[in-house]
Amino acid sequence: MREKDSVHVFAPATSANFICGYDVLGLALNEPGDEVLLKRVDEPGIKITKITGDQGLLPTDPNKNTVSACVKMILDFLGKKNYGIEIELHKKMPIGSGLGSSAASTIAGLFAINQLLGEPLSKNELLPFALKGEELACGHGHADNVAPSLLGGITLIRSYNPLDVINLPVPKELCCSIIFPHVEVQTRAARQILKNKIELKDAVSQWGNIAGLITGLFNEDYELISRSLEDKLIEPTRSILIPEFEAMKKIAKEEKALGFGISGSGPSVVAFTRGIESAKNITKKLKEHLKKNEIESNGYFSPVNIQGATVL
Amino acid sequence: MREKDSVHVFAPATSANFICGYDVLGLALNEPGDEVLLKRVDEPGIKITKITGDQGLLPTDPNKNTVSACVKMILDFLGKKNYGIEIELHKKMPIGSGLGSSAASTIAGLFAINQLLGEPLSKNELLPFALKGEELACGHGHADNVAPSLLGGITLIRSYNPLDVINLPVPKELCCSIIFPHVEVQTRAARQILKNKIELKDAVSQWGNIAGLITGLFNEDYELISRSLEDKLIEPTRSILIPEFEAMKKIAKEEKALGFGISGSGPSVVAFTRGIESAKNITKKLKEHLKKNEIESNGYFSPVNIQGATVL
Repeated sequence: MREKDSVHVFAPATSANFICGYDVLGLALNEPGDEVLLKRVDEPGIKITKITGDQGLLPTDPNKNTVSACVKMILDFLGKKNYGIEIELHKKMPIGSGLGSSAASTIAGLFAINQLLGEPLSKNELLPFALKGEELACGHGHADNVAPSLLGGITLIRSYNPLDVINLPVPKELCCSIIFPHVEVQTRAARQILKNKIELKDAVSQWGNIAGLITGLFNEDYELISRSLEDKLIEPTRSILIPEFEAMKKIAKEEKALGFGISGSGPSVVAFTRGIESAKNITKKLKEHLKKNEIESNGYFSPVNIQGATVL
Repeated sequence: MREKDSVHVFAPATSANFICGYDVLGLALNEPGDEVLLKRVDEPGIKITKITGDQGLLPTDPNKNTVSACVKMILDFLGKKNYGIEIELHKKMPIGSGLGSSAASTIAGLFAINQLLGEPLSKNELLPFALKGEELACGHGHADNVAPSLLGGITLIRSYNPLDVINLPVPKELCCSIIFPHVEVQTRAARQILKNKIELKDAVSQWGNIAGLITGLFNEDYELISRSLEDKLIEPTRSILIPEFEAMKKIAKEEKALGFGISGSGPSVVAFTRGIESAKNITKKLKEHLKKNEIESNGYFSPVNIQGATVL
């Protein structure tokens, strides 16, 4: 394809772990997400001309910003040193929320520059750069947010070395209700409170559940998916950092959620549902519950996003 | 169905764990296996009239033998106290081999008495009795051998409490090469040398692999199955008990095995292959290697058994 003068892309938010798939599963949402606009300009160099929606939290220095760093990575890799690029980032999702905010920016940047250059790389070829982008942005090169944000759907990261990312089938009616309570949980802190050693018997339940979940996805067996969406390993530790976690879980289960748990490293929580009406209802109920407890929140509901990063 | 005067059944050997699915996966083999004959007689009570192939290892006391204990369990459950039953057990597989010997006897007994009585219970209804049978036979009620021996195919034990057993798809060309080296490894001892605590990062690789394996089974993706057949958790500890393990693994891999590992708690080893010719070839090569090292062995090769326990 030919190079373009400008491009406007969307990269979706993602929910990592899928409750029982810590560090290996992730899925994309229709909303929220990030938008990036790139424009070719004559003057060489990368400039950030605008950032909206970040509440002043993101650096505009192109050496420190995730999007510009990703744009630079691809230009350097392809030996395109004298390009002039202007970047606009419209952050349409909360930062530090457990919804893959840095991953969405990373993917929006990578996908946009690749589009601008006429798609010299495939989506799969962008993945290793996405890992580097995540490492720059949050100190660890995990793929469970960048892979679904880029590829869409539900992704399995079977292995990192070598990188082995597999797209899983998405049952038609599978939807998510997401609540981001306005409390801060740093990903690093959330990782640090996890124990390095776990009981073998707990690990066995966990891999029984992940095997059940994958089987449920292939067979569109919502009952099996529901039985498998359990996390006895990570949730007991991390949920302590999330206000009203147990109360929200109870409400979600009463409202027929297939499963409820932490999105990524939190503080967002996710309920999986059969059908969008159920997701919408649970989002409303959970927001109301937090409101009653004087906790502000963002609420979303969405089917699983199938496309991943797209041109708008 | 009507009660019968006599019945002759087969229950297949099984290979538990499927390399990366410790304690949750198992699969059935076409051979070896156990045969049980039951005969109604007038005199009330359960008698064992014949055991062949056990080298005198199994108890003929009907209170201590697995098959008669299973027959009694079902008669008691159905309130049939005054039945007279004569049992023949033809042990056509090695005992203490890691091929589910006690599970095959348990299943043969349960399946036979259920057939004799005209099938009052379904196969799935026999499962809880099979767990009790395993507990009587070897001290722990694991399902990863009894479930595939009863149901056939590849089974996932997602959970024990409540019991949740799921049949997985069997890729058409998937075959196994099995070698039982004549050394003794007690299941209990093999369990005891395992560590109770494991590294979280190792557990993450393991559930990445089991998720990859299940996906490979559904997609008949032999490459993915092969990449997923890895066990960094249990194998390093247990393989120490198996002579020539590393050498056999090297041979199997050179001969294009999809994966190689311990069958159940050993000492049998299993190579998974694409096609029966490859399984046959690997069995021959591994037997030859052990022979050179003055270790006698039994060798088998088989597709995955689909039927499970059957009437002969």
